[in-house]
Amino acid sequence: MRTAICDMLGIELPLLAFSHCRDVVAAVTNAGGFGVLGASSHTPEQLERELSWIDEQVGGRPYGADIIVPERYEGRGQGLSSEDLAARIPGEHRAFVRRLLHEHGVDPAGSADWPGLEIGFDHEVGERLLDVVFRHPVKLVANALGVPPQYMIDRARAEGVPVAALVGAAEHALKQVEAGVDVLVAQGTEAGGHCGEVTTMVLVPEVVEAIKPVREVPVLAAGGIVTGRQMAAAIALGADGAWTGSVWLTTEEAETAPYTVEKMVAASSRDTVRSRGRTGKPSRQLASAWTQAWDGPDSPEALPMPLQSIVSEPALRHVDSLAEKGDTGARELATYWVGQGVGLMNRVRPAKDVVYEMAEDFAEATQRLTDAAGE
Amino acid sequence: MRTAICDMLGIELPLLAFSHCRDVVAAVTNAGGFGVLGASSHTPEQLERELSWIDEQVGGRPYGADIIVPERYEGRGQGLSSEDLAARIPGEHRAFVRRLLHEHGVDPAGSADWPGLEIGFDHEVGERLLDVVFRHPVKLVANALGVPPQYMIDRARAEGVPVAALVGAAEHALKQVEAGVDVLVAQGTEAGGHCGEVTTMVLVPEVVEAIKPVREVPVLAAGGIVTGRQMAAAIALGADGAWTGSVWLTTEEAETAPYTVEKMVAASSRDTVRSRGRTGKPSRQLASAWTQAWDGPDSPEALPMPLQSIVSEPALRHVDSLAEKGDTGARELATYWVGQGVGLMNRVRPAKDVVYEMAEDFAEATQRLTDAAGE
Repeated sequence: MRTAICDMLGIELPLLAFSHCRDVVAAVTNAGGFGVLGASSHTPEQLERELSWIDEQVGGRPYGADIIVPERYEGRGQGLSSEDLAARIPGEHRAFVRRLLHEHGVDPAGSADWPGLEIGFDHEVGERLLDVVFRHPVKLVANALGVPPQYMIDRARAEGVPVAALVGAAEHALKQVEAGVDVLVAQGTEAGGHCGEVTTMVLVPEVVEAIKPVREVPVLAAGGIVTGRQMAAAIALGADGAWTGSVWLTTEEAETAPYTVEKMVAASSRDTVRSRGRTGKPSRQLASAWTQAWDGPDSPEALPMPLQSIVSEPALRHVDSLAEKGDTGARELATYWVGQGVGLMNRVRPAKDVVYEMAEDFAEATQRLTDAAGE
Repeated sequence: MRTAICDMLGIELPLLAFSHCRDVVAAVTNAGGFGVLGASSHTPEQLERELSWIDEQVGGRPYGADIIVPERYEGRGQGLSSEDLAARIPGEHRAFVRRLLHEHGVDPAGSADWPGLEIGFDHEVGERLLDVVFRHPVKLVANALGVPPQYMIDRARAEGVPVAALVGAAEHALKQVEAGVDVLVAQGTEAGGHCGEVTTMVLVPEVVEAIKPVREVPVLAAGGIVTGRQMAAAIALGADGAWTGSVWLTTEEAETAPYTVEKMVAASSRDTVRSRGRTGKPSRQLASAWTQAWDGPDSPEALPMPLQSIVSEPALRHVDSLAEKGDTGARELATYWVGQGVGLMNRVRPAKDVVYEMAEDFAEATQRLTDAAGE
């Protein structure tokens, strides 16, 4: 196969796979796609280990890394420590979490066993992660939230590595291209994780049209894509390939916890919800008692990023750990980021099989379309 | 072009166009597509006139009709008159509407000039409309809300006319096929009017897979489709064609009021909202002060169908009429059903030009995909 993104990245299949799991990244890259390691929750030392391991596995085949540095967040540029940020959380929100856990029979005290996530939002942390990234032969760096910071664009340009960024609205696409982004990921509302309101079917042609007057960069479609026929649809819509995430969560290589995998395999496309209850920005995840409570009438309203994560992550990690052990209340609360494509993810397979089946399904879809058009 | 739906309906292009406007229906049919007249707000006498006019225009080319008879609604089967239904509306809701109009400088008394819409939900009315439909050479009858009533399926079968029904979830698709529906319209959340939560990109492959074990009927993709590249995407996803609605609202033939057309041409894909505030069921429409109020924290919560329409329609028709005259407050309140595809509807064109441009864009998208696949 051949599209602009295949040429840019040196890949056979225009299929990019975002995963926090190095094994998935290596497997997809080795199968002819392009793995992208989600690196924002790593320390620089961890990231160094992961990328070195990937280098050993892929024998020079291309892969990338994704580092989240949001444009706007609470306390940005104020040099605040984690403690300073934690002090900004209203008592009402902490009490709401305690009550919510309690109502589902989960001891809130257990959250203390789970340290707050390393908030990799700091630009200083971002730069240290980029130092690590550029010591390895990465072929793409991505920023999954908003316009990438200027230092990321400058640094990547100096290293000759293209920069990708996610957009959820055509208006943002223009801003990204003007900022110097080389690859746009047009991500529809059906996507897992942070997402906008516009669906992939509408967003992709909008983004392709919006950037035409400025600079034509490759556009990848994201959101809901877990099959080859959807990859084909993405290219019909004007994209140069697909950016995927959810589909890798239920592969054999993924580190997704067994109970979460079970939940995803059983889930229908209507079992996800776009909620602010985890990070403070709308992100799509499995609907659960947690998301219901934060989106419900008694919610104190989610806090801005990253404060909401400081409240939610220790509690949710505690919940996940209990859910894995079979705790009923914890299972009601447990949630995980995944897109509506979860309705089409019905079995656990090796990542390379997913790649091969997507390639085959893509070919069949292309045939279906040429058959329809012919005659 | 050739797909299962082309064969079934005897059309050249697998493009179905739902419109309340007979001129659009005739223009699309005459251009090689398939017009479907939305007939649920007509009286039998009006419908007779519209279909006779269409017959004169299309010279035997195929077209269809759509009649909404929802499965479930307040007061169903209780033989209630419009007055009985009106009596079920809480004073709080009427007061909310009066206050809302007042806040935007619109005199609530003016709503009295607008009679309540003829609620064509009654099965008796539905049967009378079907009597009219079958006096004309319609090639498809559709039911846009839930499983069609048994008398519609039986009657259509006796007349040798296929029945189409809309579904917003894969689970409903099975129920529809088991009930005897001949064509499924898998309608994504981006669609204008009543819609579910799942996007077209995910729903179409889900519906196609879901019905396989039962009976393979043609599936049309709906939701967000206003260009030929999206039609191509629909077929890549496994659909046999596209069901469209919004794109016809800004054609020259449409009866859409000029201010509404202006608003749609200017709107982005993010200017629509899925709200219960008009009919009581979630339906996608232009976001406005009206939808905001009903979806907001002070809302008394929309009433079940058809009660909400009895409260909302006279007020909104009054608002529309003032908005057309330039009233600022009314323009803030005015809303209209349209899908996210509105972001791609940027000029007013004759309906036949839309058909021809979609056919051309479809061909280009097919070429793009075969080029990508072919190395």
